[in-house]
Amino acid sequence: MTETAAARRSRITPERAAELYGAVLDLLREVGYDALTMDAVAARTKSSKATLYRQWGGKAELVAKAVRHSKPGGSLDGIDTGSLKGDLHALTRRSDDCQMERDSALMRGLAMAVHSNPDLLRAFREHLVEPELADLRRVIQRAVDRGEIRPDNPAIEFVMHMMIGGFAARTMIDEQPPTQAFLISYIDAVVLPALGAPTS
Amino acid sequence: MTETAAARRSRITPERAAELYGAVLDLLREVGYDALTMDAVAARTKSSKATLYRQWGGKAELVAKAVRHSKPGGSLDGIDTGSLKGDLHALTRRSDDCQMERDSALMRGLAMAVHSNPDLLRAFREHLVEPELADLRRVIQRAVDRGEIRPDNPAIEFVMHMMIGGFAARTMIDEQPPTQAFLISYIDAVVLPALGAPTS
Repeated sequence: MTETAAARRSRITPERAAELYGAVLDLLREVGYDALTMDAVAARTKSSKATLYRQWGGKAELVAKAVRHSKPGGSLDGIDTGSLKGDLHALTRRSDDCQMERDSALMRGLAMAVHSNPDLLRAFREHLVEPELADLRRVIQRAVDRGEIRPDNPAIEFVMHMMIGGFAARTMIDEQPPTQAFLISYIDAVVLPALGAPTS
Repeated sequence: MTETAAARRSRITPERAAELYGAVLDLLREVGYDALTMDAVAARTKSSKATLYRQWGGKAELVAKAVRHSKPGGSLDGIDTGSLKGDLHALTRRSDDCQMERDSALMRGLAMAVHSNPDLLRAFREHLVEPELADLRRVIQRAVDRGEIRPDNPAIEFVMHMMIGGFAARTMIDEQPPTQAFLISYIDAVVLPALGAPTS
């Protein structure tokens, strides 16, 4: 097989990648990260392990990209409402309640795996945490530029901690999955006041 | 064996309970909640399964109480500094950094188990979440009584979400375990301003 034939054979369309990511998430929910094997992904998706490794490098990368792919939007391109409150609400509304409940279950399942697999932690930071932090930073920077928040407000570096707290603590404290309505009250009651931003 | 003899035989001293709780936490770290059995606890601690069941009812209760027991203080009796800032800092200082790192690893390990075992979730709420919420509510009520925060501030119901967020998000976002210094900056930058409480 020539190099070109190999490259052609390994080319994966966006539709095919979406199918693979869906299968990876199904397997994750069924068996968890530690028991998930590239063999199982290959079998479930009728693809070759060589293709999977060529395309994604390994399990950690494949899982992080599958989770990333399941998230809505992925970019802030459409979001610029003219206020920090509007932008944070719009970010929250990118996921509907079903999506949030699924996300919350998935992230719980992965939280432990992330901490016992340094390569998964690395892939998660690269494909999930960093892009979300970058999105939040752009939203915050626009609010600073508009004069809505002071650039030296010490809460700025904790925006992601606050948001994750609201999301993750909801199930444990309230025995309910996070919803849009909950997160929007939390943004209005906690995130905006901590930042000293207008709440109305 | 008479009822009285059984009761006498099952009596467990605080020292013996502490030993048992330590062994339960060791086993939890080694094998996780799902693989932990009452047989293993009995073998490890050289106690009878009957005693364990008599004293704790079951695995969920035993694990929740072991985790509770590993937490410092457990009561706010000694904490009344005269300001919300002082009280929240004092709460944070009840755990040293080693304790927080251990707690954080343990809670990650249990987060998933809590959600797939309704009896563990119930025991956790009863022995861990509710007592901590009650502690926080008392601290907040004193701040309201002193006029430091308004009783209708909507952030009041989210204090525990904020605190858990700071604690849980630290590892994921910053790749560092939570420390006293981190939590104290977080309280000053986020929790107090969200509550509209004095920060100095």
